[in-house]
Amino acid sequence: MKTGKPEEIKMSRREEFEEERARPNALVFQEADLPIQQFFALDSQVYEDGALSRKTKELLGLVASLALRGDFIAYHLIQAREQGVTKAEAVGLVVGGSIVIPPLSWAFLRASELWG
Amino acid sequence: MKTGKPEEIKMSRREEFEEERARPNALVFQEADLPIQQFFALDSQVYEDGALSRKTKELLGLVASLALRGDFIAYHLIQAREQGVTKAEAVGLVVGGSIVIPPLSWAFLRASELWG
Amino acid sequence: MKTGKPEEIKMSRREEFEEERARPNALVFQEADLPIQQFFALDSQVYEDGALSRKTKELLGLVASLALRGDFIAYHLIQAREQGVTKAEAVGLVVGGSIVIPPLSWAFLRASELWG
Amino acid sequence: MKTGKPEEIKMSRREEFEEERARPNALVFQEADLPIQQFFALDSQVYEDGALSRKTKELLGLVASLALRGDFIAYHLIQAREQGVTKAEAVGLVVGGSIVIPPLSWAFLRASELWG
Amino acid sequence: MKTGKPEEIKMSRREEFEEERARPNALVFQEADLPIQQFFALDSQVYEDGALSRKTKELLGLVASLALRGDFIAYHLIQAREQGVTKAEAVGLVVGGSIVIPPLSWAFLRASELWG
Amino acid sequence: MKTGKPEEIKMSRREEFEEERARPNALVFQEADLPIQQFFALDSQVYEDGALSRKTKELLGLVASLALRGDFIAYHLIQAREQGVTKAEAVGLVVGGSIVIPPLSWAFLRASELWG
Repeated sequence: MKTGKPEEIKMSRREEFEEERARPNALVFQEADLPIQQFFALDSQVYEDGALSRKTKELLGLVASLALRGDFIAYHLIQAREQGVTKAEAVGLVVGGSIVIPPLSWAFLRASELWG
Repeated sequence: MKTGKPEEIKMSRREEFEEERARPNALVFQEADLPIQQFFALDSQVYEDGALSRKTKELLGLVASLALRGDFIAYHLIQAREQGVTKAEAVGLVVGGSIVIPPLSWAFLRASELWG
Repeated sequence: MKTGKPEEIKMSRREEFEEERARPNALVFQEADLPIQQFFALDSQVYEDGALSRKTKELLGLVASLALRGDFIAYHLIQAREQGVTKAEAVGLVVGGSIVIPPLSWAFLRASELWG
Repeated sequence: MKTGKPEEIKMSRREEFEEERARPNALVFQEADLPIQQFFALDSQVYEDGALSRKTKELLGLVASLALRGDFIAYHLIQAREQGVTKAEAVGLVVGGSIVIPPLSWAFLRASELWG
Repeated sequence: MKTGKPEEIKMSRREEFEEERARPNALVFQEADLPIQQFFALDSQVYEDGALSRKTKELLGLVASLALRGDFIAYHLIQAREQGVTKAEAVGLVVGGSIVIPPLSWAFLRASELWG
Repeated sequence: MKTGKPEEIKMSRREEFEEERARPNALVFQEADLPIQQFFALDSQVYEDGALSRKTKELLGLVASLALRGDFIAYHLIQAREQGVTKAEAVGLVVGGSIVIPPLSWAFLRASELWG
């Protein structure tokens, strides 16, 4: 939560990136009715460690997001790299086709800015 | 139509929102050939009162748009609310899956800005 | 549940239709792990009466299924008609385009066979 | 229209193929309300000769159908070949990705059966 | 390759399943021109061991196929299980939504028949 | 390549448009591993003159991109017009449905800005 202290004023690009994703989600979570809240809960839970590790599940989320050309490919890309896994993108590209190139490219660009 | 009078210069955010949607549509309608114009006409007509009320049809348009992650979810959300109906989003989210969360969330954010 | 009594041997076409849908779902529900079971529960719950009537929600499910060309369009079509609502298909067709014609047509054919 | 004369009884495989597509379409056309009928009319009209030849439009229809993995890829494949054009499939496959391989392969199989 | 010897006449269900997938692919591979053949080669290569194991890549293929509701989900399911991995389906279902339930359920049914 | 000479500083809008597309692609091409690079090569090659002219293939690319609502519709629209072909959009719109209207409209707007 923001307290308005000066040191909070200037967010790093990475924080901006996180917030860009988190803020609208928080809004819909708060305003929406029960089934939507349950869906959000399920969406978090499904990536937790279980029969498959969180690491592997991040890759699955990345590839599913690529194949469907979702809005958070850059987010999944960064999550996967922070879990120490890379190079899953080729599967998503080959399954999904050249229509996947633009969102994949932009995600690379975005991710390179944030790691830069 | 704009006449250039001063009071028209400053559009409200809501008017900007409408224009953002209407302007490119007008362009394609004007430049495109007959089948595209007929498609646009059919697209308006299908939401008119008939065997189903316009109210219900707005909901159908919202859910179809959510499921396909179209570009005008915020528009459909606002239309549906102005018709007095809300809370249809959960169906679109459950049918379409978590890939629908980002466009749904952004639509909530946009709509909340426009309603103040 | 089947008891093997003779009167159960010959299913009506309508029962076959229901079973064709229910049997694989039961299998995945039984074999799958917790998140999948929770998803199935959420999927049932979202069509229950609430802010919107079950009747309206059946239409929303039908149109979302049409727009995404799901496998159970005939099922949704029959559900909607049994709820006393019809004529939502045009929205799904116009939003989803001519690629929706084959699954819509087959759903009509299937539904007409089941209603006699 | 069928008159029941003996020579009509045994349809060639090609006629069966045509009928498999035409019969459900006729049903939906007949039962559906106005916007759906208008959509069907527009769907026929858009492939007629115009600024682009029917030949080219058949290719466009084939590639769009491939990219979306529609149900009538074999039909479009045969139409295109009868118009004397072939070899458009590669674009649809590369744009749409490996998920397009199964429907493309089945369409080849079906088409090869019908051409003998 | 088939030699026509009697012992080849009766295929197991598993062989039928493999053939159902392999035969149309072989046809398109043989008739198609170079870019399609290159695409097929790339599609095989992308699942080979590399920065990620073949095991993990089978999961990625399964989830991408689920999210896009491809035709070979049962095939990917069986491949993944033979690689010793299971339980990835929940990610594909949650990302892709309830529209994924029918193809997922049918894949479970098919796979259960083939495993006895 | 940029040499920093003054005349290079101010890019035309058309050059900006080209760069907006080319820069992220170059990044992914450079960082990605072999299968992705091969995919990019195949994606270029498939539009080259062959059994079908480059002209026709640009149209196929445009329509496939429209049907899937890809990110580079404006790019394909401009490519097609520079090849001297227009008026393919109606097929993409009718196959893909009204969900295609926003990306098509924005592509028209973008293209009209770039042609002045």
